[in-house]
Amino acid sequence: MHTTRSHSATGRLGVLLPGMGAVASTFIAGVLLARKGLTPAIGSLSQMARLDVGSGPDSREELIRNVVPLADLDDLVFGGWDPITRNVLDAARTARVLDREHLEPIADELEAIVPMDAVFDRRWVSRLEGVRVKPQTSKWEQAQALIDDIARFRVQHGCSRLVMVWCGSTEAYHEASAVHASMAAFAQGLKDNDANISPSQIYAWAAITSGVPYANGAPNLTLDLPCMIEAAAHHGVPVAGKDFKTGQTWMKTLLAPGLKARMLGLRGWYSTNILGNRDGEVLDAPENFKSKEVSKLGVLDTILEPGQYPDLYGHIDHVVRINYYPPRGDNKEGWDNIDIFGWLGYPMQIKVDFLCRDSILAAPIVLDLALFLDLAHRQGASGVQEWLSFFLKAPQSAGDTPAVHDLFVQRARLDDTLRAWAQEHAAARERAVVEHA
Amino acid sequence: MHTTRSHSATGRLGVLLPGMGAVASTFIAGVLLARKGLTPAIGSLSQMARLDVGSGPDSREELIRNVVPLADLDDLVFGGWDPITRNVLDAARTARVLDREHLEPIADELEAIVPMDAVFDRRWVSRLEGVRVKPQTSKWEQAQALIDDIARFRVQHGCSRLVMVWCGSTEAYHEASAVHASMAAFAQGLKDNDANISPSQIYAWAAITSGVPYANGAPNLTLDLPCMIEAAAHHGVPVAGKDFKTGQTWMKTLLAPGLKARMLGLRGWYSTNILGNRDGEVLDAPENFKSKEVSKLGVLDTILEPGQYPDLYGHIDHVVRINYYPPRGDNKEGWDNIDIFGWLGYPMQIKVDFLCRDSILAAPIVLDLALFLDLAHRQGASGVQEWLSFFLKAPQSAGDTPAVHDLFVQRARLDDTLRAWAQEHAAARERAVVEHA
Amino acid sequence: MHTTRSHSATGRLGVLLPGMGAVASTFIAGVLLARKGLTPAIGSLSQMARLDVGSGPDSREELIRNVVPLADLDDLVFGGWDPITRNVLDAARTARVLDREHLEPIADELEAIVPMDAVFDRRWVSRLEGVRVKPQTSKWEQAQALIDDIARFRVQHGCSRLVMVWCGSTEAYHEASAVHASMAAFAQGLKDNDANISPSQIYAWAAITSGVPYANGAPNLTLDLPCMIEAAAHHGVPVAGKDFKTGQTWMKTLLAPGLKARMLGLRGWYSTNILGNRDGEVLDAPENFKSKEVSKLGVLDTILEPGQYPDLYGHIDHVVRINYYPPRGDNKEGWDNIDIFGWLGYPMQIKVDFLCRDSILAAPIVLDLALFLDLAHRQGASGVQEWLSFFLKAPQSAGDTPAVHDLFVQRARLDDTLRAWAQEHAAARERAVVEHA
Amino acid sequence: MHTTRSHSATGRLGVLLPGMGAVASTFIAGVLLARKGLTPAIGSLSQMARLDVGSGPDSREELIRNVVPLADLDDLVFGGWDPITRNVLDAARTARVLDREHLEPIADELEAIVPMDAVFDRRWVSRLEGVRVKPQTSKWEQAQALIDDIARFRVQHGCSRLVMVWCGSTEAYHEASAVHASMAAFAQGLKDNDANISPSQIYAWAAITSGVPYANGAPNLTLDLPCMIEAAAHHGVPVAGKDFKTGQTWMKTLLAPGLKARMLGLRGWYSTNILGNRDGEVLDAPENFKSKEVSKLGVLDTILEPGQYPDLYGHIDHVVRINYYPPRGDNKEGWDNIDIFGWLGYPMQIKVDFLCRDSILAAPIVLDLALFLDLAHRQGASGVQEWLSFFLKAPQSAGDTPAVHDLFVQRARLDDTLRAWAQEHAAARERAVVEHA
Repeated sequence: MHTTRSHSATGRLGVLLPGMGAVASTFIAGVLLARKGLTPAIGSLSQMARLDVGSGPDSREELIRNVVPLADLDDLVFGGWDPITRNVLDAARTARVLDREHLEPIADELEAIVPMDAVFDRRWVSRLEGVRVKPQTSKWEQAQALIDDIARFRVQHGCSRLVMVWCGSTEAYHEASAVHASMAAFAQGLKDNDANISPSQIYAWAAITSGVPYANGAPNLTLDLPCMIEAAAHHGVPVAGKDFKTGQTWMKTLLAPGLKARMLGLRGWYSTNILGNRDGEVLDAPENFKSKEVSKLGVLDTILEPGQYPDLYGHIDHVVRINYYPPRGDNKEGWDNIDIFGWLGYPMQIKVDFLCRDSILAAPIVLDLALFLDLAHRQGASGVQEWLSFFLKAPQSAGDTPAVHDLFVQRARLDDTLRAWAQEHAAARERAVVEHA
Repeated sequence: MHTTRSHSATGRLGVLLPGMGAVASTFIAGVLLARKGLTPAIGSLSQMARLDVGSGPDSREELIRNVVPLADLDDLVFGGWDPITRNVLDAARTARVLDREHLEPIADELEAIVPMDAVFDRRWVSRLEGVRVKPQTSKWEQAQALIDDIARFRVQHGCSRLVMVWCGSTEAYHEASAVHASMAAFAQGLKDNDANISPSQIYAWAAITSGVPYANGAPNLTLDLPCMIEAAAHHGVPVAGKDFKTGQTWMKTLLAPGLKARMLGLRGWYSTNILGNRDGEVLDAPENFKSKEVSKLGVLDTILEPGQYPDLYGHIDHVVRINYYPPRGDNKEGWDNIDIFGWLGYPMQIKVDFLCRDSILAAPIVLDLALFLDLAHRQGASGVQEWLSFFLKAPQSAGDTPAVHDLFVQRARLDDTLRAWAQEHAAARERAVVEHA
Repeated sequence: MHTTRSHSATGRLGVLLPGMGAVASTFIAGVLLARKGLTPAIGSLSQMARLDVGSGPDSREELIRNVVPLADLDDLVFGGWDPITRNVLDAARTARVLDREHLEPIADELEAIVPMDAVFDRRWVSRLEGVRVKPQTSKWEQAQALIDDIARFRVQHGCSRLVMVWCGSTEAYHEASAVHASMAAFAQGLKDNDANISPSQIYAWAAITSGVPYANGAPNLTLDLPCMIEAAAHHGVPVAGKDFKTGQTWMKTLLAPGLKARMLGLRGWYSTNILGNRDGEVLDAPENFKSKEVSKLGVLDTILEPGQYPDLYGHIDHVVRINYYPPRGDNKEGWDNIDIFGWLGYPMQIKVDFLCRDSILAAPIVLDLALFLDLAHRQGASGVQEWLSFFLKAPQSAGDTPAVHDLFVQRARLDDTLRAWAQEHAAARERAVVEHA
Repeated sequence: MHTTRSHSATGRLGVLLPGMGAVASTFIAGVLLARKGLTPAIGSLSQMARLDVGSGPDSREELIRNVVPLADLDDLVFGGWDPITRNVLDAARTARVLDREHLEPIADELEAIVPMDAVFDRRWVSRLEGVRVKPQTSKWEQAQALIDDIARFRVQHGCSRLVMVWCGSTEAYHEASAVHASMAAFAQGLKDNDANISPSQIYAWAAITSGVPYANGAPNLTLDLPCMIEAAAHHGVPVAGKDFKTGQTWMKTLLAPGLKARMLGLRGWYSTNILGNRDGEVLDAPENFKSKEVSKLGVLDTILEPGQYPDLYGHIDHVVRINYYPPRGDNKEGWDNIDIFGWLGYPMQIKVDFLCRDSILAAPIVLDLALFLDLAHRQGASGVQEWLSFFLKAPQSAGDTPAVHDLFVQRARLDDTLRAWAQEHAAARERAVVEHA
């Protein structure tokens, strides 16, 4: 009798988070509460969504987690790095995302999760002051320290597998340079302490070279670099980026396909955001906002195809702004004004005010990216996982054509990939049964 | 050599519109301007949308109208009935949808289109007073008069084909009764002047029994009756209903799938509309609003599947209101408040203010339904055309399962049907070429 | 030596509240917390506002409560009646207005306040079911029972003065009838169990004839009746009504004067409200909504004077709607669309979305009306206190001309009355000092 | 017999406008249409507002223009300067504020108004390119050229009086320097071509030294300089500034007093604007936006008095943004989010979306400032006219205390001044009648 070797999700999965602030603490708290049965994991596809499987008369909707071998919430272990946070309970209290009643039942567990000292460099995040920072000043040594952290965490917590999801701040905008051109160049750059290497790149490098899948939740230039693509292929590690698609861009990738489906024209789209958390503070610096802006602006063109529909989408004014506004706290508010036109060119306006919660929307994405990347790893996939674009604001393409932004096409691709793997597993189980008989 | 018999769109297509007010006049004006080359037909799938055809390396996006044989805008002839309107230019001026500059170049053509006297009964639309009304008081004779109108129009305008699209008011709410149970019962009911037979039913009956496809743009109980289904099958006529999906419901069928794709919960959805046109006046009467309300409320459950996702969609408060507010004129404004929840049940709110234009959104739908029903007729299709659900607020199912409301699934089904027909035509052309050679 | 007889605020003031639900419990909780020093009494003029006093070089802003002898928060005692509520802690928990952290420090005090059984009649509030209801079925006996309650409360709690503020539901709409024409007619009506006498009228009657000032916080027909005016004069009791001016109408009496100050025209004003508390449930019944609608619609004409400004305000479409929407709870949301016009008649739109909290806005008004009515009583004032219009949606006039609605004029009149009394007291103190010397 | 010397408004009043774009052309067009009787002058206090006059039983509301001797619309003559505009008809068409139907009846008159070449310097308005610019490069000569223009205009058009209202762009932010310290210093600075002297200062200097009242409709540093105050006093010329209070700030000075009247706390106020006209383009440059931002931010503190009410207004986050967004054209849209708090500190939110029209709101202010400054001049007033603060975003104080921002207090002060002058005129008329008898 054979078993479905290597595919089974047994053993503990360590989830490592560079950046343990509002998003990370909300994510961890939710998983802890969910595994106590105190709440369903709302917003998480891996826990709640269903997939059409079977065909013809056998067609039915099954929970995704019943048809592919995802890690169980009970098997997750949490760790990470942060330049400020003392422990995850503190982080959650500072973030003020969750009410006291949600923190109480898990306060001890949260307090026990203590971030490791961070690789931090203020030149990339001018608005923050790091206090729990690694002493190493050479980038090579910083990378080595992270690799050691990873190895130690794996052993200490008895993890059979690890995955890393960047939950930290947005770094200042910069573009790829020679140091990013290859694994060799990057390794040399680390040794040379090259100024073009940002902290997030050091984390990703440490993860990938340790065989740990990496997801990039910020608009940082991290995985979208030749050196990282090469490394992921070399180490057989799946990666996914970038920038969690939470509030306003999620809405945009929902509305824009709707306009196009109806052949309504678009003249302009003005988006402003107000938020008052650490993220808002960081993005108030123009160089950091630039990273986010570039990540947010790409959405419309890819969806609307102005080349195919010049009368409708040939001339769009697209403006995106983010403002730091302390009264809002973590509760991001996005206000969009959308100028459309219809029959005979008559103008109409859509205004969307989205009173959302940044970390509440991001937390289940952290969970899904962690579990799906881990699954992909066990399925033998490596490199950019374009099928995870659904979760990302500026999805990275695995090939030559740009990644899709349309939320519904993204979801269909996610489902297709999972369905294919589900069929493999179903077939394997069937074979097992037959051979066993 | 063979040709693709019966499928070619040659000859004139008469478009008959019961109800020639704001929507009908905007539709006709736009077609006239478009065929003068003064504007693209924005919002119309038949004129502007593209279809993925071919596969593999041959895959490409073609204009729908280039791959299926739709009637050409130049071949359309317009007619209809109205209890108030003197001519279509008057209707357009009264509606105040279009600016003077858009009416000027086509004023003579619009003025020349004079509605025929209407079958009208104030018991179904208490807020309107009909002045151009057929003298017949027997419903049987009214039906006969309409059948005669249709026949005369066909001959006078040299039409090779006709199609009818209801653009009139919403009738008072009522439910099906014995008189609607079969063709025989309905015919007898007409003779008996049965009080349960509404004007829109008489129009639909006249159309179908004259072999004319019929689309229902209002929430009236018209096609969703056994007698009409039987008649459509008997006469081999395609039909589609009901209620043009224009502003708020369009938005709803766009946002609800987005929530579901992300597994975000929904606690309540409050929708209010203000509008000041004839439609708003009619809907200010509670019995007419009831028809519209029922049409609008069905949307969410079908999309969200509370049975499959009880934690997310098991308890939704869905409220829909319409208020007559004269300052708005034809410019409908829909304000939606959507109460959602995410991770750990934390509430968030989406507010959408849609400053739309009722007739501007409806006009291209009239065009598409007319052209696609005519195409379906030539393709030999009959009965309810569920693939046209995309255009309808309360789409009628052709079978036992309810019709889909998800805008993107609807669009995919529309594309699938058109693609299949496009392939037939491509194959036929290829055969023709081969045999010709 | 003389003292300012009768004017000093010494002794306990009993605040009696017919209707002890969300508003009453929020009011009481806030006072209890404020007198523990845990919060300032935000929103309360009597506690926080300042008055310009003195003139010329002596002009200065003093706290109102420092210049007129208001009852001290420490001297308030709370009581009331309710057909449902078991005790005020329960009411607060059911209302879900206040967080656990605000209820904890005062839970025992709230629990100890137990409403007396109510005079309740479901014909006036069809959506509620009363369970703690007085057994008397004769209205005369009901009035007598309330008068006994008042007398007993006064003795039991050692109150030197009492005041009553209606915090109950909106009653069904009705108009004055013969039974309301005089004290004698009303007394006879009570004996005859006249169907035109509503519960709120019985409460007001009991209060006034017991010498207790009465404020009407709902749009009920209570004080605006000849019998009540006569009774207030006869018993020398000050009264004030009606309908707490909390969210949307407050905003309206703020914006409308602004439009008029700038001579901008008004074409229409559409107001919709959604709320999910007991009040929303009651107002979902058309006969109760009618009371509220009438109360809300009067505002604009009085402020805008269409007679004086026919070009600007001669033709306004004013629509007000309230919808019961459970997800909102006590957090009322008012959405207003205001259609204005300027230079050359060009239209502009103002949209206001007010995410307010009904009870949070009402609670300080309860406090102010109680303290100011008590002050007025001690000042020897009786009858309708028009200077309290600031707090009321449909202020009752004391004379022949309608009461003002303009928020700023109302505030000026309030200040004028208080300033006059402050001067009296200052003069009296000065005389006292002089004579003492 | 005496007459009311110097006070009568006889003869022509020349209205000179530096900057003849959207605002100026809308203003002129409206006045021309109003004097043809085609529209009332909506939004103008001088034309439409009433004043309480008389007292006691004689108290009545009279039109302002009936009780003070304002210039008649028929007596206005228009002129000005602009670096781009060819004539006012062109300007109106470019601005696209007014419809064709409003321009047609006055097209010839508008076309005949040709701006004089402007004093223009791109260093102050980097986004504009001037093409109709005076050849003089010395500031002294530029001033002289303007003074000559003024004198020539007066003669050519037979004006008995002139007034100047700045309708041009916002200049880059700068602060006062030594050159602005006195008339002498400024005159020397002109000769020295001092880089700290901006074009608007040259215009104001030319006006004041020519005895022409000047109003500043932009946030430029112009009148708020010692040299200009000295010059206005020296030449006996009334002046008023700065920055027309049109949309968002008007709303702010309306809502903030309302919050304060009710003692509701304010935690933050976020204001964003989108507009697509020349003004929006200019303000897209950070140095020009800075001028506007400073002008807009001062409003709240003055109104709310945080010193008196620290619990309510002691810590406010106030953010103001303006974004250039071409689809909006001249139709400015202001979106405000206001975070307030009430009883027990519970937070509430007010969101205001103001779909306004910049020039439509500004045009009647231009008219009122012109007529009221001219009146003031004839009344013998000179220097800063603080009573005109009503019309201005950042009103200049005439004394040591800051000018008031509260819209209603401003209006009361305006009315007080006018009432005093009205009484003078009434008394003068009475004396005249008596003496004549």
